[in-house]
Amino acid sequence: MKIGIVGGTGDIGEGIAMRLSPHHDVVIGSREEDKAESSCVACTAALTELGIPCCLTGFSNQEAVDRSDIVILAIPFRHLVPTLSSLHGFEDKIVVSPINPMEKREFFVYTPPEEGSAALLVRKMLPEDTRICSAFNTVAANKWKALTEELDLAVPVCGDDAGAKATVMELIRSIPGVKPYDAGPLAVSCMVECLTPLLLNIARYNKMKDVGIQFR
Amino acid sequence: MKIGIVGGTGDIGEGIAMRLSPHHDVVIGSREEDKAESSCVACTAALTELGIPCCLTGFSNQEAVDRSDIVILAIPFRHLVPTLSSLHGFEDKIVVSPINPMEKREFFVYTPPEEGSAALLVRKMLPEDTRICSAFNTVAANKWKALTEELDLAVPVCGDDAGAKATVMELIRSIPGVKPYDAGPLAVSCMVECLTPLLLNIARYNKMKDVGIQFR
Repeated sequence: MKIGIVGGTGDIGEGIAMRLSPHHDVVIGSREEDKAESSCVACTAALTELGIPCCLTGFSNQEAVDRSDIVILAIPFRHLVPTLSSLHGFEDKIVVSPINPMEKREFFVYTPPEEGSAALLVRKMLPEDTRICSAFNTVAANKWKALTEELDLAVPVCGDDAGAKATVMELIRSIPGVKPYDAGPLAVSCMVECLTPLLLNIARYNKMKDVGIQFR
Repeated sequence: MKIGIVGGTGDIGEGIAMRLSPHHDVVIGSREEDKAESSCVACTAALTELGIPCCLTGFSNQEAVDRSDIVILAIPFRHLVPTLSSLHGFEDKIVVSPINPMEKREFFVYTPPEEGSAALLVRKMLPEDTRICSAFNTVAANKWKALTEELDLAVPVCGDDAGAKATVMELIRSIPGVKPYDAGPLAVSCMVECLTPLLLNIARYNKMKDVGIQFR
């Protein structure tokens, strides 16, 4: 299965790419293909140095969509509408939203769009036969990029298509130390998206770094 | 410090009472004083059988408020307005809301009041000098009542008064295996309250029981 990461040159995109590419073909996408290529070289070098084989290529965002079965939208919420509007070819693909609409005031606040969540906005913008999941929302980029750090994290997944959800959960399970949890349909993806501002507040007020979540 | 539990005869109230009463004076409150007394006898018996000394008494909800420094509102959201309207004497007290407004449809959905959260509604209803915190929101009653089970749980606390928040966090810290986290001001208590429907969905969809949360 080929994974495309739209906005793959950002911290979260690179973090996901580095953790998935030892197990899957990953295409890092970017608005500028050059940046995608450099990011790809940097990530491959970091993995190779640790003796971890990987399969990473860099292309435009559109090619990342075209070349993949699963597309991960690793973009900030403010770029969501312009980016999705500029891309096509999502028919029959699985699209994963790790996007958390939030604002940083004195503290972090969850600020969902009127659709109810970023994932529901993605649902509205993409073709009907695109299967949408929200996942990877609580990825602390620094933790995922610190390849020598062992992960011990929960990744809640929302989605309305059982097959797509199972595929995304399998994808998550391929990353050592990361456990997927079915968190219900897209209708409740807001409750997963708002974990991230909660975790950022907890990090801030308790002097912690890169806080992750676990369910026990 | 004396702890009063309004609605202390419910599962969550009893769970909190049993975990706090070995370390603090706890007053179980109920609309019916008889029920509070029976609950008190049952909880004391359960603790005594395990050789755990405790200090528990049962009274009316109003007396639970009057006799306490910290009042925990262990009531379902639908009882919040009528219960608070029927009680008085909250001046200068610390009031803790573990209340999660939610609905069970096919799955659990967070349904906050127009104030933004249950804790903010409590804030609006009580006197200005009452210091409000939200805490104990994610208590899985069965887990807390299973006294032989070791806990390993995070309890996020929101509040606007630093002193009250520190006191509530200290109270939580007195329960072995439970760790308080400062989750910010009351303004973001919605992000803590909606953890509970999320955890209930995760329990349901992943065939788990009494799911708790941890931050790592």
